Amino acid sequence: MTPNAFDLDSWSDQWLGRVEQALSDWIHPQAPAGLGQAMRYAVLDGGKRLRPLLVWAARQAVAGESGDAALDEAALRAACAVELIHAYSLVHDDMPCMDNDVLRRGKPTVHVQFGQAQALLAGDALQALAFELLTPDASVIDDHVQARLCRLLASAAGHAGMAGGQAIDLASVGMRLNEDQLRHMHRLKTGALLEASVMMGAACGSPSAETLAALQGYGQAIGLAFQVVDDILDVTADSNVLGKTAGKDAANDKPTYVSLLGLAPAREYAQTLLDQALASLNKSSLTHTQALTAIAQRVVNRNT
Amino acid sequence: MTPNAFDLDSWSDQWLGRVEQALSDWIHPQAPAGLGQAMRYAVLDGGKRLRPLLVWAARQAVAGESGDAALDEAALRAACAVELIHAYSLVHDDMPCMDNDVLRRGKPTVHVQFGQAQALLAGDALQALAFELLTPDASVIDDHVQARLCRLLASAAGHAGMAGGQAIDLASVGMRLNEDQLRHMHRLKTGALLEASVMMGAACGSPSAETLAALQGYGQAIGLAFQVVDDILDVTADSNVLGKTAGKDAANDKPTYVSLLGLAPAREYAQTLLDQALASLNKSSLTHTQALTAIAQRVVNRNT
Repeated sequence: MTPNAFDLDSWSDQWLGRVEQALSDWIHPQAPAGLGQAMRYAVLDGGKRLRPLLVWAARQAVAGESGDAALDEAALRAACAVELIHAYSLVHDDMPCMDNDVLRRGKPTVHVQFGQAQALLAGDALQALAFELLTPDASVIDDHVQARLCRLLASAAGHAGMAGGQAIDLASVGMRLNEDQLRHMHRLKTGALLEASVMMGAACGSPSAETLAALQGYGQAIGLAFQVVDDILDVTADSNVLGKTAGKDAANDKPTYVSLLGLAPAREYAQTLLDQALASLNKSSLTHTQALTAIAQRVVNRNT
Repeated sequence: MTPNAFDLDSWSDQWLGRVEQALSDWIHPQAPAGLGQAMRYAVLDGGKRLRPLLVWAARQAVAGESGDAALDEAALRAACAVELIHAYSLVHDDMPCMDNDVLRRGKPTVHVQFGQAQALLAGDALQALAFELLTPDASVIDDHVQARLCRLLASAAGHAGMAGGQAIDLASVGMRLNEDQLRHMHRLKTGALLEASVMMGAACGSPSAETLAALQGYGQAIGLAFQVVDDILDVTADSNVLGKTAGKDAANDKPTYVSLLGLAPAREYAQTLLDQALASLNKSSLTHTQALTAIAQRVVNRNT
């Protein structure tokens, strides 16, 4: 099979079937007082699952087809954990005191459906559950893999990653950021967790330092490309296709790559980042990079 | 030194000095866009630090005076991590969509001081930071200790622990719970994290299964006793002494041990739980239990 013949859709379907089933198994509907229902609503049946795809693609890149069952289990847990962190951030981000959004993945947002207090708690509980999934009994996954995965995820989710990026985002409403500042905000807000997805997949294996560096270069470029394309789609797509409110960056007076660079240069920049991501893979000694390549192309060429 | 001569205050002062310094070092003021300031405000200069005390007392109970430097470091990180989880829960709990409280530890609550969006993010970032503190490089703490600590903390913080208890609390406003239901709510909401503090301290050592069970019995009894006394103080103390709004359970029509049992029987119940906690320690082979004993006595006999 040549790299061009790689079928991302069938590769994705197979893996995401396992991820969806695992998420459904691990988010207990019987969690107390409606909390489980709100958590399931926030996570199940929706989203592109880009982060779980990156975890598995990176796992395959470092391990090839010859999987080790315990490390495959680690990758499944890592994929679900990183998706839980992403989902919790959306729940909190949509709340009235943040972006005050009522539509997400084509459905009412969690606080609209369950109330603000339950949305707050569901987000909190999803973050805790992410770390719970990463730390099963040591007989399931080696403790050193558990510790590495927790380390990567905690760092990407916290003040020096996603939460820090959201604080900058909050403070930058109505401000004109320069390109360095905008890049810094997005590296934290969106990029850190996408990069962590790649690195967590890699942590379910034993890559060399050189390979890790190549994957990190890929993850950083894709993380930023994702946000540039998000900014473009916020202007060019409509809410029905997007499944969330389009045009909200401009409505909220938020700085974006489109407002900074203009639409055509933003598109060129996304393409440049795609080239960087693929170049980082190509200069490594990795051979099983078809999925990583196809995901990167989709990130940049998607229309939702 | 006989057990009665144990000086809890000087023991506490020494340990908490290290904890306060570590918290201040680890919550960076330079986290982006005011987030670090909100996180520091939420955590530093306040609180009884009961959870860090339990971590260290349990660590000493299993290790005696002969500390291992790496495991002492693990206990310090565990103490800080569990306090960060506690602090984040207070920040979110005080928000308008939850308890809507304006006073905490004698100061304006975080959302009053920094706004709701920053309070939400600060809470989220504190939870992530807790897991970051537990997962430094493997050269600092063995990976298997890191994994055990993350496992205990994630489970106590999430849907089957603190967050689940808060969901029950939210749903029980205006309801009459029976004693089993009230106990279940408090075991999750407050008890899980207090019990986890004890177990995390124990995890910084190699206790036998029998010793772990004794410590767990102690932790569970103390966890519940803490809440019974909290319910009593909400009725009997005034806000100035308490440093938070007194009388708010009745004002919010929340079920408590006082409303269920009456004041005098609630006091007796707290004493019974203290006896259970000490009995659990005494039937174990642990010898360095002075701090655990003194903390239990203070939990039940405190007036703030």
